[in-house]
Amino acid sequence: MTAVTRSEHDLLGDRDVPAEAYWGVHTLRATENFPITGTPISTYSHLVEALAAVKEAAAVANEELGLLESEKAAAIVAACREIRAGKLHDQFVVDVVQGGAGTSTNMNANEVIANRALELLGHAKGEYRYLHPNEDVNLGQSTNDVYPTAVKVGTVFAVRGLLDAMAVLQDAFGRKAVEFREVLKMGRTQLQDAVPMTLGQEFSAYAVMVDEDRSRLAEAVELVHEINLGATAIGTGLNAPAGYAESARGHLARITGLPLVTAANLVEATQDCGAFVQMSGVLKRIAVKLSKSCNDLRLLSSGPRAGLGEINLPPVQAGSSIMPGKVNPVIPEVVNQVAFEVIGNDVTITMAAEAGQLQLNAFEPIILHSLSESITHLRAACLTLAERCVDGITANTEVLRASVENSIGLVTALNPHIGYTAATEIAKEALVTGRGVAELVLERRLLPAEMLADLLCPEVVAGRGQALA
Amino acid sequence: MTAVTRSEHDLLGDRDVPAEAYWGVHTLRATENFPITGTPISTYSHLVEALAAVKEAAAVANEELGLLESEKAAAIVAACREIRAGKLHDQFVVDVVQGGAGTSTNMNANEVIANRALELLGHAKGEYRYLHPNEDVNLGQSTNDVYPTAVKVGTVFAVRGLLDAMAVLQDAFGRKAVEFREVLKMGRTQLQDAVPMTLGQEFSAYAVMVDEDRSRLAEAVELVHEINLGATAIGTGLNAPAGYAESARGHLARITGLPLVTAANLVEATQDCGAFVQMSGVLKRIAVKLSKSCNDLRLLSSGPRAGLGEINLPPVQAGSSIMPGKVNPVIPEVVNQVAFEVIGNDVTITMAAEAGQLQLNAFEPIILHSLSESITHLRAACLTLAERCVDGITANTEVLRASVENSIGLVTALNPHIGYTAATEIAKEALVTGRGVAELVLERRLLPAEMLADLLCPEVVAGRGQALA
Amino acid sequence: MTAVTRSEHDLLGDRDVPAEAYWGVHTLRATENFPITGTPISTYSHLVEALAAVKEAAAVANEELGLLESEKAAAIVAACREIRAGKLHDQFVVDVVQGGAGTSTNMNANEVIANRALELLGHAKGEYRYLHPNEDVNLGQSTNDVYPTAVKVGTVFAVRGLLDAMAVLQDAFGRKAVEFREVLKMGRTQLQDAVPMTLGQEFSAYAVMVDEDRSRLAEAVELVHEINLGATAIGTGLNAPAGYAESARGHLARITGLPLVTAANLVEATQDCGAFVQMSGVLKRIAVKLSKSCNDLRLLSSGPRAGLGEINLPPVQAGSSIMPGKVNPVIPEVVNQVAFEVIGNDVTITMAAEAGQLQLNAFEPIILHSLSESITHLRAACLTLAERCVDGITANTEVLRASVENSIGLVTALNPHIGYTAATEIAKEALVTGRGVAELVLERRLLPAEMLADLLCPEVVAGRGQALA
Amino acid sequence: MTAVTRSEHDLLGDRDVPAEAYWGVHTLRATENFPITGTPISTYSHLVEALAAVKEAAAVANEELGLLESEKAAAIVAACREIRAGKLHDQFVVDVVQGGAGTSTNMNANEVIANRALELLGHAKGEYRYLHPNEDVNLGQSTNDVYPTAVKVGTVFAVRGLLDAMAVLQDAFGRKAVEFREVLKMGRTQLQDAVPMTLGQEFSAYAVMVDEDRSRLAEAVELVHEINLGATAIGTGLNAPAGYAESARGHLARITGLPLVTAANLVEATQDCGAFVQMSGVLKRIAVKLSKSCNDLRLLSSGPRAGLGEINLPPVQAGSSIMPGKVNPVIPEVVNQVAFEVIGNDVTITMAAEAGQLQLNAFEPIILHSLSESITHLRAACLTLAERCVDGITANTEVLRASVENSIGLVTALNPHIGYTAATEIAKEALVTGRGVAELVLERRLLPAEMLADLLCPEVVAGRGQALA
Repeated sequence: MTAVTRSEHDLLGDRDVPAEAYWGVHTLRATENFPITGTPISTYSHLVEALAAVKEAAAVANEELGLLESEKAAAIVAACREIRAGKLHDQFVVDVVQGGAGTSTNMNANEVIANRALELLGHAKGEYRYLHPNEDVNLGQSTNDVYPTAVKVGTVFAVRGLLDAMAVLQDAFGRKAVEFREVLKMGRTQLQDAVPMTLGQEFSAYAVMVDEDRSRLAEAVELVHEINLGATAIGTGLNAPAGYAESARGHLARITGLPLVTAANLVEATQDCGAFVQMSGVLKRIAVKLSKSCNDLRLLSSGPRAGLGEINLPPVQAGSSIMPGKVNPVIPEVVNQVAFEVIGNDVTITMAAEAGQLQLNAFEPIILHSLSESITHLRAACLTLAERCVDGITANTEVLRASVENSIGLVTALNPHIGYTAATEIAKEALVTGRGVAELVLERRLLPAEMLADLLCPEVVAGRGQALA
Repeated sequence: MTAVTRSEHDLLGDRDVPAEAYWGVHTLRATENFPITGTPISTYSHLVEALAAVKEAAAVANEELGLLESEKAAAIVAACREIRAGKLHDQFVVDVVQGGAGTSTNMNANEVIANRALELLGHAKGEYRYLHPNEDVNLGQSTNDVYPTAVKVGTVFAVRGLLDAMAVLQDAFGRKAVEFREVLKMGRTQLQDAVPMTLGQEFSAYAVMVDEDRSRLAEAVELVHEINLGATAIGTGLNAPAGYAESARGHLARITGLPLVTAANLVEATQDCGAFVQMSGVLKRIAVKLSKSCNDLRLLSSGPRAGLGEINLPPVQAGSSIMPGKVNPVIPEVVNQVAFEVIGNDVTITMAAEAGQLQLNAFEPIILHSLSESITHLRAACLTLAERCVDGITANTEVLRASVENSIGLVTALNPHIGYTAATEIAKEALVTGRGVAELVLERRLLPAEMLADLLCPEVVAGRGQALA
Repeated sequence: MTAVTRSEHDLLGDRDVPAEAYWGVHTLRATENFPITGTPISTYSHLVEALAAVKEAAAVANEELGLLESEKAAAIVAACREIRAGKLHDQFVVDVVQGGAGTSTNMNANEVIANRALELLGHAKGEYRYLHPNEDVNLGQSTNDVYPTAVKVGTVFAVRGLLDAMAVLQDAFGRKAVEFREVLKMGRTQLQDAVPMTLGQEFSAYAVMVDEDRSRLAEAVELVHEINLGATAIGTGLNAPAGYAESARGHLARITGLPLVTAANLVEATQDCGAFVQMSGVLKRIAVKLSKSCNDLRLLSSGPRAGLGEINLPPVQAGSSIMPGKVNPVIPEVVNQVAFEVIGNDVTITMAAEAGQLQLNAFEPIILHSLSESITHLRAACLTLAERCVDGITANTEVLRASVENSIGLVTALNPHIGYTAATEIAKEALVTGRGVAELVLERRLLPAEMLADLLCPEVVAGRGQALA
Repeated sequence: MTAVTRSEHDLLGDRDVPAEAYWGVHTLRATENFPITGTPISTYSHLVEALAAVKEAAAVANEELGLLESEKAAAIVAACREIRAGKLHDQFVVDVVQGGAGTSTNMNANEVIANRALELLGHAKGEYRYLHPNEDVNLGQSTNDVYPTAVKVGTVFAVRGLLDAMAVLQDAFGRKAVEFREVLKMGRTQLQDAVPMTLGQEFSAYAVMVDEDRSRLAEAVELVHEINLGATAIGTGLNAPAGYAESARGHLARITGLPLVTAANLVEATQDCGAFVQMSGVLKRIAVKLSKSCNDLRLLSSGPRAGLGEINLPPVQAGSSIMPGKVNPVIPEVVNQVAFEVIGNDVTITMAAEAGQLQLNAFEPIILHSLSESITHLRAACLTLAERCVDGITANTEVLRASVENSIGLVTALNPHIGYTAATEIAKEALVTGRGVAELVLERRLLPAEMLADLLCPEVVAGRGQALA
């Protein structure tokens, strides 16, 4: 009969672990200590893959430095590659929100990798005398350099997905900018009718916003390429032999394909969360712009009869359980909510970063969690917005043109020609009488008809600040 | 010739103080140490008056307990009353944002009161051998009980002003609710046309929001009536004789007219900022609602031609330097901005409260500053909104009625009578053809004409959830 | 052969739904539209149970009013009771973060209940001609009254769990307050040695903080008992017959055992999220205090040799992958992180509440999500802190007593007897020479020996502001 | 007798303005409409100077394009130069928090410049027929391009001051890093004793943090060099003649010495506040790091006897009104508070940016206000921290060395030589017995004495992650 558990030992004593589990006693205690969110670290596959990459890099570096036997190193590398290929993720069971500065996440990785490596070497799980989670897998490492490095590498992985999704959204807005480039409409400032523009210009602005935010995000993610692997406990590199930091960094760069650099001052790098704060600040910026754009889409599509009714969002589901035929802007609404979440997460990250003390920030797990949530939810929001909303937007061209011809804002175009005072009077009269600006100008003989026609030609009026070609 | 300075002494040595200054060496050093915001504590007259009230109460209590000579007590009381009457406020010169848990504010008060009392006793300023800022004015007190107590009393003073302003705003909304109670309009959910209602109901909702927020604020301010006077340094009451805490509380209640109570656990009360966090949370709630209401006002008054154009805000200034005749919703806009400020201040207060350590929160000065800003700016915002905007709002009754008659949302009223499926089809056809719901229902003989008329009678439709009587 | 799908129809056309699914076409579209967080609404069982309670109450009310046949009503009630008993929760599959103001959650509930009811009536799933999700289950309702009501009822359920957990934590702190009531220690202000107190007083303060926060939470949850059931789309009660609102409220109160009340102004209640903002503000207050207490626990247990070393937290796991024997304060650390999350969530909720427009807040789903997260994570944090940390705390009594006897802060006790100036000099000399305050006072004959002994008796010094009995 | 007022006219009618005022009727109305904070825009001299620079650039551009007579242009330029030289700032009286997207600030500038120009031309104030605030000073401009441009230029001016102050602080930390480079101490992670390091490394980390933040700030301020001058109302450039945007930008660059560029898409640039959100995010990052460093300074200087007592902050004022001889870390405390304010301001700015609608963000005034507050307060905090605190810090070298020799953390250095398991046991025994790690290792003959001496040599232990040279 097969045993259903195996016994493992740590500082606090012996514990039974399920025989089939790749994780061990440290992981077991962590799951008992942190029953907080119910979200295991396996939720963030970018983190799990990054952890495996770090462990693989360390093993190779240790082998090269003669600290780890080749057989052990090979088994660790093989186990890590399996994880990077998507296997064993379900063994990463500790809660994403945990005390201990990520120690439990690191221990979970050490144990899973050790036990898989043991199997590959023909041993049973738990036979740590042949290959030990701490003495071999974690050799020359500390949670305090492994965890931040893995969080950074994992963040880079996740951000790539967001950058791609933003490009999809930018393209969707850009296509609409082209499609609507001839559609005249009234521009508004402070929700009041201002001066004419094209609907293409409006969508072009959204495309440019996304484009600029992509640039900012690409800059911010560069900061996250600076790692502290080799710093060990506090940045003094204690227990990591000469050459280890550089070798491990090199292998990690090779494995991940990322241009990673080692921080110049490892003591500083080990306690500092500045790059995460900056990243979150940029994610917040993206959220702000996305939310603003979605507010606009909801406003422009308001109606159908008692709203602005300038554009139509594609219906994606019935809008109401009670009001038949009602279709609501549910996609922009969900994007707004993701934006609010990202902005809240930024406060969480800010507080966690500020709370770091002396040589370490113990609160990096909540930073990882909030950052991962922000990145992955923003990605989903961008794709959803592009594919289920922007792509299907249509314009109510007639309504838009009529609003320009009927507007008082046209008078602004006459300002330089008839003066602010006369223009103000025309505007007032148009407002009071409900008449059009053009006819009033002609009636008062303030301008000859042809000049007026030229000045009021909407294409000319909208002339500068062009839409994306 | 009169000396232009006098010399004063403290722990760090001698310093020259301007001869005419009522403040002394401690204040001098504080102004040098904290050149941060340029905003002196005199900006918050509610705090200065509260400080004087606390000092007066302490002096009387000390006299009664035989710890302070009557002559000195009388002089201190007289000086405090002058301050409470609005004098000498310009002598409260330390920066509102200061280190030291309010010590510099307390010292500033001690020095001003001592020097004014010395004058009243016929001595020169600085002759502290006759009456000493620390040994007499501050007798039996600590910054750690005086400052929080003064901040609480001052907050109560300031909140009264806000409650009054909110009542003014509530009345303004309430009057409009009555004025517009017959004005039919389309209600909107998710910015999409929903079902009919009255404009009076819309304004009634704003009035009720303010009313509810007033109740919440009145509850929150009750928590601020709990003080820790007599706690001295850390809540153990060291150096305050038996009976002092109760006597001082009683006199402070008498002087201020407030039903103050002493906290049951003074150690807890001395380190806890919970009441301020709660107060700020309620101010944030008020800000959220005010901002929501102003967003609505701006939306409803959008136009004049390419917007909703349902209501008109009174013009209070020219709206544009370039667009003649443009009038913008500047009053709601400034209220929105105050709301954003209050919400940001809440984060500041939260962080300051969280950062308290062990027996004291050293960061109460920024809590005072942020809280005072939130309260006084909200007060100004409520009054401005009521008097310069809400009072002058008019309705475009014709536009509103037409939007109801033209709406598709009316179909919802038919839902229980013709079923969701049929109603959905009617809505669809109305949308596609641009025709009215009523005629389609009749054409299809889904309902007899009289029944339809009754069901579509807007007064009935808007029946429940009535406006303020 | 059994069909693996059934076909359902909505506004947008036909769709195949898995034959075994209790949810239908509306739910299907929602899962496609909102692939945002991967967290289904079933995660919040308090919400699912509340939804079922609301639907049950509505069905009974509709039956009583003669609008729903008894057989249908009975089947709906039976289905709802199964859900309230914990069944079918896995059928609530829409993402917690969704557009549409909760419509998809409401539709998901309508469909699951309808299909289960159909089964109970002997029909197949999808045979809506016998019992319809919208026309029967949702009869007289709107998402706009059902969803906010369910969120409120669910919040009350969840808050009860938090209140219980806080009571557990309060008791844990309270027991330590009693256990340590004789342990003298130095109190600190601004991290500087201040005056003596007992360790019991320190823990008593934590117990009182939790107690006060429980009171505040109990007050805040009262506001959440006000519901808008019967308001339908915008608060005018359109399509809900006379008597429905009161009847449905009564049945919901009976079913849930909660003293629910219907809002006086349903138009206001339907658009207002004030009660959630207030609730979140109080949760933030709780988070602030918990975090402050955990900061203190981490500080007091710092060491073992180069820290304050006043108390010992029970070890719950190995502290380091690299530093043998290191035990870290992982439980307080995880509580800090939950606090940061709650504070961030408050910003999210604030923004979502502020973004409501006109007659509805479309962003209630993120409010539900953030609020549920805050409540359930705080509950877990309180229990974990009590059971895995506070219960096992021990005091280093000798270290603590020595710090009092060696302290300069004792001089404060002499202030009223020898005056501030002399006391300052003694303090200075003690600091410079490293000698004790007592011997200096005696040497200078500032006080007779017996009086000094009495004054410096720590039990007297700590006299007021007593610990919990 | 001289008249004390002059009459001016606008859209709303006639008003009397004080005869000596350089501002006019638009400013008058704005001061009445916005009695919010009591803080006039003159508080931010960087904004006033930037406004004058923009107006000067516009006048020269207009003259070159033949739109403005040379005499008028010269007078406007002369007036603007006076303002840039610091004159007439007291005439900028409108409240910093105002509705209208900055219109009142722009009008205030137009009026002051016009009236001063009129005087220079020999006319009386108010004789606008000779030179008009709107038609001449504001020619070809709109608030919507002038105000954002001025806010950006002013922000660049203010940020320069902050960058300089940060350099001062970095140098102060850097000097201490050098001074303390031989001082051994225990490093701490999670407040628990970890492994040895030098005090120089600790201060070096603070210096590096400031250095990195300066780099980030320098990058962020580059984004603020992109302006929208020439966009006029909504970015279409209506009323600005061909060549104006480029000419005005060129002159503004010349006048300010800044490498300004015109945004590629002016419609986007006119509605977007992304650069301000990013700037505020970086200011928040700076605040987080400053606060963390100050938390550390307060912790390291805690005591004098019952704290860590590792360093001494210079006393700058008496610490307590009741505890003689107490000196508190008031300078770090005030810096913490500024950090909390900056973090709160970031939320305010975020909300204001998110609230922008369609072609304009109406809430830029609160963005200006919050940003200016954050920048100027951080500047003051950095200088104060450097000059009144860091420069005077001394180390308790003996205490620090003893803590290393007495520490258990030294065992970590033995980990790779004796194995994790043996090391754990040594650590445990040292903890239980109170004995030193070294003697236990020798006693157990785990290592030869010389090897141990080498391994435990603190200079070697602290080897990597060196302090600033």
